[in-house]
Formats: sequence, structure tokens, C-alpha cells
Amino acid sequence: MGSNSFHMVIARLIHGEIRTLEKMGEKVQLGAGLDANNNLTEEAQERALDCLRRFAQRLQGMPTGAVQIVGTNALRIARNAHAFMDRAEQVLGFPVEIIAGREEARLIYLGVSHTLSDDTGRRLVMDIGGGSTEFIIGERFEAQELESLHMGCVSFRNRYFPDGKIQRKQMDKALTHAAQELLNIRHRFRALGWQSAVGSSGSIKAISSVLANLKLTNGTITLDALRELRQRLVDMGSVDRLADLGVRSDRQSIFPSGLAILLAAFESLEIESMTYSDGALREGLLYDIVGRIQHEDVRERTIQALKGRYDVDNAHSAAVEETAITAFRQVADAWGINTEFDEELLRWACRLHEIGLTISHSQYHKHGAYLLRYSDLSGFSQQAQRNLATLVRGHRRKFSSAVFEDCDPDDVPRLQHLCILLRLAVLLQHPRNMDQPAGFKLVANSDMELTVSFAEGWLEERPLTLADLENEREYLARQKFVLNVG
Amino acid sequence: MGSNSFHMVIARLIHGEIRTLEKMGEKVQLGAGLDANNNLTEEAQERALDCLRRFAQRLQGMPTGAVQIVGTNALRIARNAHAFMDRAEQVLGFPVEIIAGREEARLIYLGVSHTLSDDTGRRLVMDIGGGSTEFIIGERFEAQELESLHMGCVSFRNRYFPDGKIQRKQMDKALTHAAQELLNIRHRFRALGWQSAVGSSGSIKAISSVLANLKLTNGTITLDALRELRQRLVDMGSVDRLADLGVRSDRQSIFPSGLAILLAAFESLEIESMTYSDGALREGLLYDIVGRIQHEDVRERTIQALKGRYDVDNAHSAAVEETAITAFRQVADAWGINTEFDEELLRWACRLHEIGLTISHSQYHKHGAYLLRYSDLSGFSQQAQRNLATLVRGHRRKFSSAVFEDCDPDDVPRLQHLCILLRLAVLLQHPRNMDQPAGFKLVANSDMELTVSFAEGWLEERPLTLADLENEREYLARQKFVLNVG
Repeated sequence: MGSNSFHMVIARLIHGEIRTLEKMGEKVQLGAGLDANNNLTEEAQERALDCLRRFAQRLQGMPTGAVQIVGTNALRIARNAHAFMDRAEQVLGFPVEIIAGREEARLIYLGVSHTLSDDTGRRLVMDIGGGSTEFIIGERFEAQELESLHMGCVSFRNRYFPDGKIQRKQMDKALTHAAQELLNIRHRFRALGWQSAVGSSGSIKAISSVLANLKLTNGTITLDALRELRQRLVDMGSVDRLADLGVRSDRQSIFPSGLAILLAAFESLEIESMTYSDGALREGLLYDIVGRIQHEDVRERTIQALKGRYDVDNAHSAAVEETAITAFRQVADAWGINTEFDEELLRWACRLHEIGLTISHSQYHKHGAYLLRYSDLSGFSQQAQRNLATLVRGHRRKFSSAVFEDCDPDDVPRLQHLCILLRLAVLLQHPRNMDQPAGFKLVANSDMELTVSFAEGWLEERPLTLADLENEREYLARQKFVLNVG
Repeated sequence: MGSNSFHMVIARLIHGEIRTLEKMGEKVQLGAGLDANNNLTEEAQERALDCLRRFAQRLQGMPTGAVQIVGTNALRIARNAHAFMDRAEQVLGFPVEIIAGREEARLIYLGVSHTLSDDTGRRLVMDIGGGSTEFIIGERFEAQELESLHMGCVSFRNRYFPDGKIQRKQMDKALTHAAQELLNIRHRFRALGWQSAVGSSGSIKAISSVLANLKLTNGTITLDALRELRQRLVDMGSVDRLADLGVRSDRQSIFPSGLAILLAAFESLEIESMTYSDGALREGLLYDIVGRIQHEDVRERTIQALKGRYDVDNAHSAAVEETAITAFRQVADAWGINTEFDEELLRWACRLHEIGLTISHSQYHKHGAYLLRYSDLSGFSQQAQRNLATLVRGHRRKFSSAVFEDCDPDDVPRLQHLCILLRLAVLLQHPRNMDQPAGFKLVANSDMELTVSFAEGWLEERPLTLADLENEREYLARQKFVLNVG
């Protein structure tokens, strides 16, 4: 669900290869439906839901893990994104996620790189969206530099070409604005360099075919050709004459803004030439699903990298994870938290619960949550990051409703249960000797009551653990949760 | 200004050596003056101010850099600390700062290590305060592990011995509570180990002399002697009989709680024996001042360490610093920000303004501010950290009053001016080519107006910088600040 258009691709995995069955796309212009307060208008939401209803037909009966639905910039900035997503999930019957700009960039690169021949050397990939533009340098299937800049063909159209007129002065302003944004990456990207440049997205596709139609090039995009095209657009003076160049009517209004962004990128990054590629975000999502199926889960790599960066005590976090999973297996069915997603989330939280210690011991659960909430985590949606941050935030000290206030209300009961298991595991591993508690038994008496017990005599020999459990009972009682130690 | 007592030490630096001229101490019991909402009662504030009035006499006429006044745990947790500090500064005529627990630990180690013979091997230092207890492992004058735990002889007295009775059950509860706190450091501290253990603070001094008075030891503290002392206290049953053991009346009520904390530390950390040292926080502050004078400023080391940890682009940050200092020199007098403190703060902010990029490019100024606000930064008071975080927070994007809301209102005009200089420097170094702007001239027309100009033709050749300056003018205008580009 992009700011300009919505896309869907359906594919089948055959002998490890992806066979595309169907591609669909509609120009919903969700980004143009943001009002002055960044709320999606009812009209824009209806437009989007109509499109999703058409897509939804093709999704019926698919298993959950096989469908991934993500939103990008327009939903990142919409204040009422949550309400819209609830409606979208109703229509689609599958969960909808919002991804951060750099995660979008990673997926675009994944999609584009799979459509290209497996050449050697670094490549620059650029994708002009409705609300953001992504730049990536990568080699083979790995992105090395990723950035998402706050400029897109819809937002620039609204700002510089709102009335369909193409004036030189407005074109220059759009170019300067784009060049300012590009200053944020120019130095870094040029220092790394690339051997080939590839563009994806509808804007770049349209520019490539206009250049071919005008016989300025064979479709390859060059700096000279872009400058010539800019001149011709200014001479025309109005977007409705773009039909003469073969631009589809639904793309005409955003064509000049897309050109300004592309030309600014050529000048700022000193791109010599660029070819168009068919791959994009939607293909990236496909390859991401396949990676998870084939156990090359990028999320595992992300967790591993975080553990390294923040010097996690691996032996301790593994002991916490083992205790937590022992607990999870005993109550997951009773509490209805028995999905693979639940177990993964709990495991990740165990591995990362102490990363905030890098900042300070004092309130380290809050620092860890901050890092997880705001870092660019490859492979994670914003909701998944938020849920992970919430578990880490709640793993010690007060168990209050404030811990969960950042989450989707539907997720709260599930997160509370996972959080209680994490807290218990951390508490039982408090002595940091890596011993697993003998005869550790959990019974979920109800959604709000848990009984924990141990082998005869085990707890009696550990007065500190007993004292910790007594404190924990008080913490949980504040949320009306009953912990029995017996 | 400790939670239990206030101390002052006056010394003269003679040929690089510190000669102590005077030591003063009063049992103010500020921590006991916190009410149920963690507000300092008027009575406690008066008690504290009376003491400070006596101290103030000795401070008259001293130069600013020669006086350092810090508050610890009671002021860290008091909600009305700010109001109290204003009153204290009025009485004292010098700025008052609050330091974090780990900074307190560092200074204690510095003080203690300077009173000991320059032996080899690691030492454990422990200091029982009124509201917190510090543990440090260090070698010579360098701390290697630092921690401040939330337990102190005043807070434990209020909780476990409020009525002067010494009951076995209450003593056991206090021991268990302390042992739970110690679990946070036990593993780490024992893994590193030490060759000798030293205690500072009044509680440990009192215990040491009681052990000598009772002829249990020669004053050396051992586990057996502490257990024997606990038994005798329980047999006595009441603190007023402690006079028989030679405990001064103003220390009697907090003696059992200090013993519980010390005994728990011996058991948890497996300390064999401990000697008492005279050095403490106040001596640490002295050696810290001397270090700054002798250009071994621990704060510079802290900044350097942060730059390393968060992979700062050194060439770029040096260019920003050079531009900022060029700006600073031209307007510092006119804006009354011409102290060494102001220049230092600006320099540090230049060096660290990009550390938030480690977390994410998006909103990195906020991430950098978070890291600076909450990290343990050796040598920095909490106010200094907050001010540094504020400059980093405000170095790009919106220049709103929200940026400064965390700061002392008295500091705001000064921080706003420094922040404007930092913003200008970052803006002018936006192209990241390390060039210094030619003929860069600043004139402070008033407190709220600045005119910036460059060598003939320099700006005209740089349309992006011009566009950035125009944006900046709009940002600053929101705070009624006028930026002229001419």
C-alpha cells in the first residue's frame, strides 16, 4: 500500500524458485488523501478500501504465513493510520503492517536484485515513491547502504505543481528541494560508489519510456536526456500535454515532480546512466517470505547483529531463553499464545532484554526498549518492533498498563502473557549462574492466574529467589494478575 | 550534599599536591526529610540551608572554577530538588549540581584511591550512603567497574528500623533486601575480582571502630566479626544502647541498617576483610578539579569514548567544530556567552551531534539527545548532560520551545544562543566537504537578531546553502529570532 499506488503480486514457490502467477496495481493516491493535519480523508480511505476489496478476492483461503501486506510512507505519517488499518484488515482478512523507510529500501533492493542478472560489482538502486524515495547501494542480494528520503512524486506534485502547470521557477524550486534532501546521503553514497545504476517504480518507468518515445535514448536514462526532457516539459507548460509523449492520464500530474527528483539525484550523486528494472517492493516481500521458509531469516541476522553491537552476555541470555521457553510450552495453549509468532517474539525478547545496559544500568529496560523502538531493524515491521520493545520495557520493575500503551490494543492480552513469562525467566536467572530451576512447573489456572512450583526443597534453599517471587506477586497484582507460588 | 550528611573540604594546590586546609561535616539527614511523595519537607530544607549558611562563610571570595558543589541520592529523587537548589545557590553563591549514581561512584573511587598507598592489583571500594550504596573495582586511580545501588542507611532505617527497635526478623528482612539488590552486581564483580577491599563513609567507619572497641578485631572488618556484631545488636534490641559501644548519638538510629547492608555485601560478594579509608566523594571532587587544571580532564576522555563507540565521522565533526567556534568568537561577548563553560559545551555538542545516527537516520538528533541524557558520562553532572543533550536535540529541524523544556529556565537563553551557533555550523558543513566558509562573518545585532555574511560571491555559488539558510530563517522565526543573510 504505497503513497501513490497499491500493488499485489501472487506467486508460487516451485522447487525453490518463485513463479509469478499474477500482478495487480491500482493508482489509489493515498498520499494525496492526507489533509492538513495528516489525517487520511474518508474519501481516500474509501478509495483504498475499494481497491483492497478487489485484491481481497484473490487472497481467499491462503494460509496466514503466505500473505504479507505492508504500508509505506503515507501510512507512516497518517495520524489515523491505525483506524484505517483496522478497516483494511477487516476487508483483507490478513494482518497489515507498516514498515519503516529503511526497511522499505531493503525490500526494494531485494526485489530489484532478484530481477537482475547475477553480475558482479556494486549497484545503485533508486525507487521514487509517492511520499518517499529510496536509495540503496548493494552487491548481489545484499544491501550495503540504505536510505529513505522524505520526498516523493505525490508530495512534490502537491507542493510544486498543484495546478497542472509546469513553470520553470517551480521546477527549479523542486530541484533545489530534492538536492537539499540528497545532501544527507551524497557524501556517503559517492564515497562507496557503484558500477551500475538501476531505477524501479512507476515514475522511473514512465520517464524511461518517454525518453524512448522521443528517441532521445533507447530507454536508458542519462543526465543529458533528463535535462532535455525538463526543457521540453517547461516549454509545454502544462501536464495535460504529456499525453502526446505517451504518458498515461493517471500518471501525468506526477510526471514533472518525478522528473525533478530523478534529475536532482543524477546531478547530486553524479549518476551517469540508469536502466529501469521491473522488480520492486512487492517482489522484495516475496523473496523475504521465501527466505524465512528456507531458514535464511533476515530477522535472525538482525537480532544477532544487535547482540553483538550491544555486547549481550550470550550465556546469560541463552539461559533466560531456555527458562522462558520451558515456561511458554506449559501455558501457551491455555493462554492462546501458541503460534510461531508468539514463540519467536518471546525468544527475541529473551536474547535482547539487556541491551539497554550499554547506555546505563539505571532504568536499562527503558533504554533497551528505546533502542528496539527506534533502530532500523531489517526484516521487522514497525508493529513487530514496537511489540519487541514492549516486552523488553516490561521485563522488570513495574508491570503497569503504561508498559503496553504504545501497542495495538488487540495485541495487549497476548503481550501481557508473553511479558509475564519473560519476567519469570529473568527472575529465575537473576543469580546469573545459568542453572535451570529444578522441577519448574507452571499451571495457567485462568487468563489472570498462574501457579508456579519447583522440585521439593529447591525454592527453600534459595531465599533470594523466593523474595524475588514475592515481589513479583505484588507487581503482577497491580494488573489484577494472581501469581501463586506453591 | 549527601542523603545523610553534608560535607565540605577546602584545600590548596601546592606544586601539584593537594594540601587539605579544612574539613567540615554535618548530619543533615536530607533523605529522611523526603515525604511520601518524595518532596523535601520545608523543615528538611531549612535544616539543609542552615548547614549551607555555615559552609558558605568559608567560600566567600573564591573563584568560580575552584568550587564544586554536588548533591547525591536524596536530590536525585526529590521532586522539588530544583526549587531547593535555587535556594541553596542563593545561600552559597555558587552553582549546585546533581550527579548520577555512577558518577558518584567514580568520584568516591578517585577520593579513596588517592588516600591509599599506590599499591598494585585491583581493589574493591564500597561506600554506604544515606540513600544509595556505591561499589567500585579499580586499579590505581582508574575505576573499572562502577555501580550505585538503591539502598542506603537512611532509607533502610526508615523501612526496617523506624522506631529504634532492633528485631531479628527486621534485621533478616533488611539483609534479604540488600542481598537482592546485590544480585545485580554480584556476578560481574566476582568475575573481575580484587586483591584488597576498602570501605569509606561514616557507616563503615562507625562499624570499624565498634569492632575495635569490642576488641572483636583491631578495626579490620571481617565476616565473622560482622555476624557477631549483628547478634549483639539483636540481643540489645534497641538503638539507644549503642552508646555503650561508643556509637555517637546522631549515628545510632542508622547503625543497624548500615550493618545490614555491609553484612549482605560481605556475604554476597564473598569479601574476606575490609579496611576503612578516610577518602570519599569530597576528596574525589577535589582531585577531579585538579585533573581539569592539569589538563587531564576526564570529560574529554568521556567525549572521546562516545565518539568511538558511536562511530562519529571525525573529519566532519572537526569541521563543524571549527565553524562553530569561528561563529562563537564573533558573538560570544555580545550575547554574554563568553565563559569557558559555554565554549566547552559548544565544542562537545559539535563533536557528538551525529551519534544518534547509530540508531537511525530518521530523527537522529532525538536519538543522540537520548543517548547523552541517559548514558553514564564520567565527569558530567546531570545538568551538564541535560544541556549537552539539549544542544544535540536542537541542532537540526524545528527550533521550538519544546527543545529546551528539560533545562533549567535560567539556562535557556544561553542554550538557545549556543544552539543557534551549532545549527549554523552544521548547516554550513551540510555539503560534508570540510571546507570552511570564506569570509564567514557574524554580527549579533541584538539578543534576538543575527546577521550572517560571506565573502563576495561565495554564497551565490552555493544555491543549496542559500536554500538551507532560508529554511533556517523560517525555523528561527518561530522563536521570534531574526536571521539576516546579507
